Amino acid sequence: MSLRLGLPKGSLQDATFSLFAKAGWNIRVDSRSYQPVVDDASLSITLIRPQELPRYLEDGIIDAGLTGKDWIEDCGADVHEICELAYSKATRNPIRVVLAAGQNDGVESVKDLEGKRIATEYVQLTERYLASHGVTAKVEFSWGACEVKVPALADAIVVNTETGSSLRAHNLRIVDTLLTSTTRFVCNHASWADEVKRGQIENMAMLLTGALRAGELVGLKMNVAESNLQRVVDQLPALRKPTVSPLYGDSGFALEIIVEDKTSRDLIPRLKRAGAEGIVEYSLSKVIH
Amino acid sequence: MSLRLGLPKGSLQDATFSLFAKAGWNIRVDSRSYQPVVDDASLSITLIRPQELPRYLEDGIIDAGLTGKDWIEDCGADVHEICELAYSKATRNPIRVVLAAGQNDGVESVKDLEGKRIATEYVQLTERYLASHGVTAKVEFSWGACEVKVPALADAIVVNTETGSSLRAHNLRIVDTLLTSTTRFVCNHASWADEVKRGQIENMAMLLTGALRAGELVGLKMNVAESNLQRVVDQLPALRKPTVSPLYGDSGFALEIIVEDKTSRDLIPRLKRAGAEGIVEYSLSKVIH
Amino acid sequence: MSLRLGLPKGSLQDATFSLFAKAGWNIRVDSRSYQPVVDDASLSITLIRPQELPRYLEDGIIDAGLTGKDWIEDCGADVHEICELAYSKATRNPIRVVLAAGQNDGVESVKDLEGKRIATEYVQLTERYLASHGVTAKVEFSWGACEVKVPALADAIVVNTETGSSLRAHNLRIVDTLLTSTTRFVCNHASWADEVKRGQIENMAMLLTGALRAGELVGLKMNVAESNLQRVVDQLPALRKPTVSPLYGDSGFALEIIVEDKTSRDLIPRLKRAGAEGIVEYSLSKVIH
Amino acid sequence: MSLRLGLPKGSLQDATFSLFAKAGWNIRVDSRSYQPVVDDASLSITLIRPQELPRYLEDGIIDAGLTGKDWIEDCGADVHEICELAYSKATRNPIRVVLAAGQNDGVESVKDLEGKRIATEYVQLTERYLASHGVTAKVEFSWGACEVKVPALADAIVVNTETGSSLRAHNLRIVDTLLTSTTRFVCNHASWADEVKRGQIENMAMLLTGALRAGELVGLKMNVAESNLQRVVDQLPALRKPTVSPLYGDSGFALEIIVEDKTSRDLIPRLKRAGAEGIVEYSLSKVIH
Amino acid sequence: MSLRLGLPKGSLQDATFSLFAKAGWNIRVDSRSYQPVVDDASLSITLIRPQELPRYLEDGIIDAGLTGKDWIEDCGADVHEICELAYSKATRNPIRVVLAAGQNDGVESVKDLEGKRIATEYVQLTERYLASHGVTAKVEFSWGACEVKVPALADAIVVNTETGSSLRAHNLRIVDTLLTSTTRFVCNHASWADEVKRGQIENMAMLLTGALRAGELVGLKMNVAESNLQRVVDQLPALRKPTVSPLYGDSGFALEIIVEDKTSRDLIPRLKRAGAEGIVEYSLSKVIH
Amino acid sequence: MSLRLGLPKGSLQDATFSLFAKAGWNIRVDSRSYQPVVDDASLSITLIRPQELPRYLEDGIIDAGLTGKDWIEDCGADVHEICELAYSKATRNPIRVVLAAGQNDGVESVKDLEGKRIATEYVQLTERYLASHGVTAKVEFSWGACEVKVPALADAIVVNTETGSSLRAHNLRIVDTLLTSTTRFVCNHASWADEVKRGQIENMAMLLTGALRAGELVGLKMNVAESNLQRVVDQLPALRKPTVSPLYGDSGFALEIIVEDKTSRDLIPRLKRAGAEGIVEYSLSKVIH
Repeated sequence: MSLRLGLPKGSLQDATFSLFAKAGWNIRVDSRSYQPVVDDASLSITLIRPQELPRYLEDGIIDAGLTGKDWIEDCGADVHEICELAYSKATRNPIRVVLAAGQNDGVESVKDLEGKRIATEYVQLTERYLASHGVTAKVEFSWGACEVKVPALADAIVVNTETGSSLRAHNLRIVDTLLTSTTRFVCNHASWADEVKRGQIENMAMLLTGALRAGELVGLKMNVAESNLQRVVDQLPALRKPTVSPLYGDSGFALEIIVEDKTSRDLIPRLKRAGAEGIVEYSLSKVIH
Repeated sequence: MSLRLGLPKGSLQDATFSLFAKAGWNIRVDSRSYQPVVDDASLSITLIRPQELPRYLEDGIIDAGLTGKDWIEDCGADVHEICELAYSKATRNPIRVVLAAGQNDGVESVKDLEGKRIATEYVQLTERYLASHGVTAKVEFSWGACEVKVPALADAIVVNTETGSSLRAHNLRIVDTLLTSTTRFVCNHASWADEVKRGQIENMAMLLTGALRAGELVGLKMNVAESNLQRVVDQLPALRKPTVSPLYGDSGFALEIIVEDKTSRDLIPRLKRAGAEGIVEYSLSKVIH
Repeated sequence: MSLRLGLPKGSLQDATFSLFAKAGWNIRVDSRSYQPVVDDASLSITLIRPQELPRYLEDGIIDAGLTGKDWIEDCGADVHEICELAYSKATRNPIRVVLAAGQNDGVESVKDLEGKRIATEYVQLTERYLASHGVTAKVEFSWGACEVKVPALADAIVVNTETGSSLRAHNLRIVDTLLTSTTRFVCNHASWADEVKRGQIENMAMLLTGALRAGELVGLKMNVAESNLQRVVDQLPALRKPTVSPLYGDSGFALEIIVEDKTSRDLIPRLKRAGAEGIVEYSLSKVIH
Repeated sequence: MSLRLGLPKGSLQDATFSLFAKAGWNIRVDSRSYQPVVDDASLSITLIRPQELPRYLEDGIIDAGLTGKDWIEDCGADVHEICELAYSKATRNPIRVVLAAGQNDGVESVKDLEGKRIATEYVQLTERYLASHGVTAKVEFSWGACEVKVPALADAIVVNTETGSSLRAHNLRIVDTLLTSTTRFVCNHASWADEVKRGQIENMAMLLTGALRAGELVGLKMNVAESNLQRVVDQLPALRKPTVSPLYGDSGFALEIIVEDKTSRDLIPRLKRAGAEGIVEYSLSKVIH
Repeated sequence: MSLRLGLPKGSLQDATFSLFAKAGWNIRVDSRSYQPVVDDASLSITLIRPQELPRYLEDGIIDAGLTGKDWIEDCGADVHEICELAYSKATRNPIRVVLAAGQNDGVESVKDLEGKRIATEYVQLTERYLASHGVTAKVEFSWGACEVKVPALADAIVVNTETGSSLRAHNLRIVDTLLTSTTRFVCNHASWADEVKRGQIENMAMLLTGALRAGELVGLKMNVAESNLQRVVDQLPALRKPTVSPLYGDSGFALEIIVEDKTSRDLIPRLKRAGAEGIVEYSLSKVIH
Repeated sequence: MSLRLGLPKGSLQDATFSLFAKAGWNIRVDSRSYQPVVDDASLSITLIRPQELPRYLEDGIIDAGLTGKDWIEDCGADVHEICELAYSKATRNPIRVVLAAGQNDGVESVKDLEGKRIATEYVQLTERYLASHGVTAKVEFSWGACEVKVPALADAIVVNTETGSSLRAHNLRIVDTLLTSTTRFVCNHASWADEVKRGQIENMAMLLTGALRAGELVGLKMNVAESNLQRVVDQLPALRKPTVSPLYGDSGFALEIIVEDKTSRDLIPRLKRAGAEGIVEYSLSKVIH
């Protein structure tokens, strides 16, 4: 029996398929069937809106899936979280779910919304948040684009935002942050208890994480004369050991190491000054520590 | 005080603005403010999703608006219907709200859905429909794209369809039709009772209808010698009288008539054979009978 | 039984559908059936490449169709020509079928091609042309884009050209012109002999011609005082008589005339100086003389 | 000898060509020669940046041209202004040339810029403006996009703006308005003194103005029974007389009038209530009063 | 003297240039000269339609080229086949040349086409096929898009197909398969007999094959303690030997191997469980076994 | 205090950001703020038009930046040149600043321009050039697109050109070359004298150069039996030494070397014939010699 996997339908779909391709699974949506096809007979994939995914997971209709922490919290779903997968279209920053009001509406805190009208896609999350602050307000479900409703159709909104730019463009101001959220790989408790499914899920988590990790690392190779070896090794990050191979017919060594992409620009000049020669940087597709 | 008008946000928006432009109102959405601006100080326009429009109309937040009969019925809203406006993106056919199931799922009638799961955007409409047939089923609200949910996530769906092509593409079959629907110009009872607002609404209905009608008609002009006049007039549609003017210094007449665009290709050759000369066809922007 | 009409598949298709729409027939290609649908039950339309259309016409598989004079000649097909229809994508100029060779190849006339290799889509036309000049050469059929074959793959080519720009861009020179060609409305002799079909074909020719003509004309209206009438009329093109109607309660006249679009910019200032008032220009959709 | 006309190169080019096409001149830029070609042998057209056009006009290199009032003023050019032509890409509003500074930079008036750095494309205009206020500041010529220079590279800017939205987007604030500007049809004094050229220029001004005017007007036709004639005529704008023609074999009249497009939506319902029947609206391509 | 190479003009052109770039030859088509330019003075490239390439190869106008097995067979050309190159736009599957008829036309085998009309681009191939089955039918040459001709203009067609989707979309059914075909690197016998040209051709075949192969493989590197070495090696594919290098100042080894891309997702988790550390995957541009 | 870096705004912007990304700095322009953001707290980036950059560098408003040699010369700016960076959109060729005139204008040398009008963006450069040849002419500043000004608005121009194709397209001819130019990494003298800033600048130069160099090289790996080792090594380019590692449990060696991308297609067949096995080519992201 195959593992039933739910993937996020909508704006994250392309980024998700691209991540799976790097990890080793090619997923394709046939324009006629709408059912994703994957080159792995032990997997069956369904596209589900992130909002609805926790519900289907809890009901056992799928075994595992990817969705945002925000929607898990909104549903209050009881699921097993396997790992965080910090990928998204533009940045790797978490999104925030915020309460926002008009620039000049005088709303200083959630307390000022007593008896008011709040539009949101996060109805339950908002209601629990209001209750925890002892505030009674009308929470209205809204089909996306809440930003345009203030002030004509709503007094405040609860929406997600990554950079805040859409809020500013609509002349809105953040009053409070309800939670921060990233994408999570989650499954239900029954699938996690099933030994075969857990094995599949753990392998998949290892390869997804390895593909994401590879994007943050680069490989470095260099040649070092024996007399400089210690000086060069001293420059390397303490945590990871380089691969050192003796060179034939030479007193020198070939040295190879994986480092953070973002440190490479500082490290390379230091290595060169310490005596490394012929430094070469190349990119990686997966890294499993 | 201005008439507050709600127009449909989303896929019908461009077609709606284009219809209003033909009728005489230029509406523009500033990319920054999102609030439509119209060149009529006695009007204030808000874009509202068709699903939500009946609710805002009933609450008195807007005076009048355009939405589908389907959403009026789903809300069960108590509003005054002014006229039908049969425009849409592709065709002028009404849409139908249908109950659909998988091609080979054995669902022959709504009775076969007892205890099953139905996904829809029309929750209330579906629940009333089921009740009227004495069927108990779980009706789940769905964010659009219900078609992909059968059979994995739902046993049947209630959706709107114009040509049925999306249903066929998803291998679904129509089981029953709940209602047929076109766009309606509607207002609330208070606005209709207000003499000033009713005047504004009736003028607007006259011009919107006149602009739609003009797209189906063309103007024809021709010159006819007196001896041929009766023969030419005999070719014309019985229902509408031509405008006949005597020509100066000539025994002939200038004849002008409005006819259906689609009959023009049959009528013109007959007119020419009956003796009409210099036949000219031109297009129209408004026709008020 | 319906009239079977063949329309040119390929680069002229959109321009052809647009011309038929102006004439009164809406043709649509359903992306699934590939068979064009037209809003006239007495017509059945097939898309056929212009090269092949004369063959199917001669075999009686279609009754009438549009294709180029060049392909009729290449096939040597025995068909009835109804009228010329001078429409095309860029200009209304005829195309020419020419013999072309490299700029510096020393080919001065067809005589210089004895024993050479000629690439063309017009195999039969080229062979008849060579025979009539007593030249023997190898004529090779070529799938489009003959221009790139000179000199590596062919010594000369026979191709069609509208402005000669593609020939110049490939550094080729026109040696001789085999024929000039425009689009023709043609039918087979049996359909022309059938009274019902002939009536349909003649009506269609009248409306297609009327739609094309309307694009070159504009309507002008103006008011003229009686004292200026002769002076204004003297400015008008001699060939066409204006429509003159007396105005009510006034000594003046309303004058209306159809003129060539391209003369309007010279005519209007002259009319105004001659005493015309309130000059109005409007566009036309069909003109049947 | 032909009239040498300069047209604005750049963002206004397409709108300018479109206006000339409506007036009766088809202008085409061949992608190879870059020199515009026009279907009028008595005209020779050059594309010139609006900033530079007044200079070439004053030097007699061109006879006439279109440019903005702002650039005429910046150059301080001595030219003859024929008429205003209020067309532009988005709106028909005049643009304004303004002095702008950062939202929170404390610049309250031009006086606060003593000794500061101002970036602008309008160097002369800005220097005359500063001198007239007794302020000494460094005026730096800037290649477009001045908005991004504040505050890092400039203390204030002088730019043109239509809606102010680009200024707001860069967090800038208007401090003062130097002038408002629209497009003008201008010529040099020598060409205006030349009888032949002046005739050409006046005809062109008549047709350009007539094409622009037609976009603001529509034609209305209707039939009116004799008994209603006075009541219908009373509804019409006082300034313009309708064309009234008696109908044949009928006691009624055909009535035709040109009205402002924007009043049509108010006028049509009033005409119908006054007894007009079969009201038809159609669009116009030129109107010469 | 340079090697004259013919490459396929048309839909395969971009994929062909991209394959050559990976192999080491940069080919560019200058928009003015139409003659491809390559950064190798010993090569001269001509673009030729695949249908015509075998003819020019046999005539000795080019030395070598890429075309489909289907066109070689259609021409019946006597050429030397160097190797298969399984690249194409969408998949690496071979195409098939098939005989197809309408879904419900009752054509069960080629025998049912006696006396019928068959449209095809493969005229000779079809005629030989019919002859070998003792069937006499009219074979008509067709300019592409044969699928739309059934049933109006032809009783059956012979076309190429990769996935069969175009046939299904036109409601056609495959009756028989004439041949399967992939792209081949071919040359004429004279060029193969010439030692210098043969050397060039063999090097080019080695690099094209190496570039294609690299897309199916990935490189893996890992570190392994001596005690785990045998366990890790046991996991590796039997056919290929890993490169094992001793690490300096350590009892472990660096292990490197090339594996099939599609097995990597199963292999990596097994390697990690067997004791491999720091597993890194990277991509390859050429692999020559 | 951070290093203030100026990068070229305009056509080179995307290529510049891409080069910095390869070198290790990710730069992003927020569509609202227009201020580039970089992931390095010690850097502050401003986009400046290349024409204006030398001026801001000399004034000490920025410390270092990238611009063309042509603009440095035009400004006559006194700056320190760190290194050349030969990247651009299409090719790696230098651009030339040339004096050009019409094909048939009879301008044979700069001497023929005495008393004429020259349009250019390089006003100072042109004036110095004329002075050095003892020529007096009117040099006019022009907002780009000088090519279209000849002959109507200028007698000659001074412009930059890479391939000369724009000049030819405008029917212009190069009369003289004022200078050739590539992109340079430059700083002001104060920043170069500051030890901390100079260290930053040198590291950046090392990494930018290393990223550019990597695009011209590839890595090769292969296995060689001991008996073939000398023969394989003899094939390698003399200048660079390969990395040779003994293989475990085998008499062979793993050999690795970096070679020019463009020699790879010749080298690989030779290496294989000399006995190399399992030859693998991979790409590089940085190479620091």
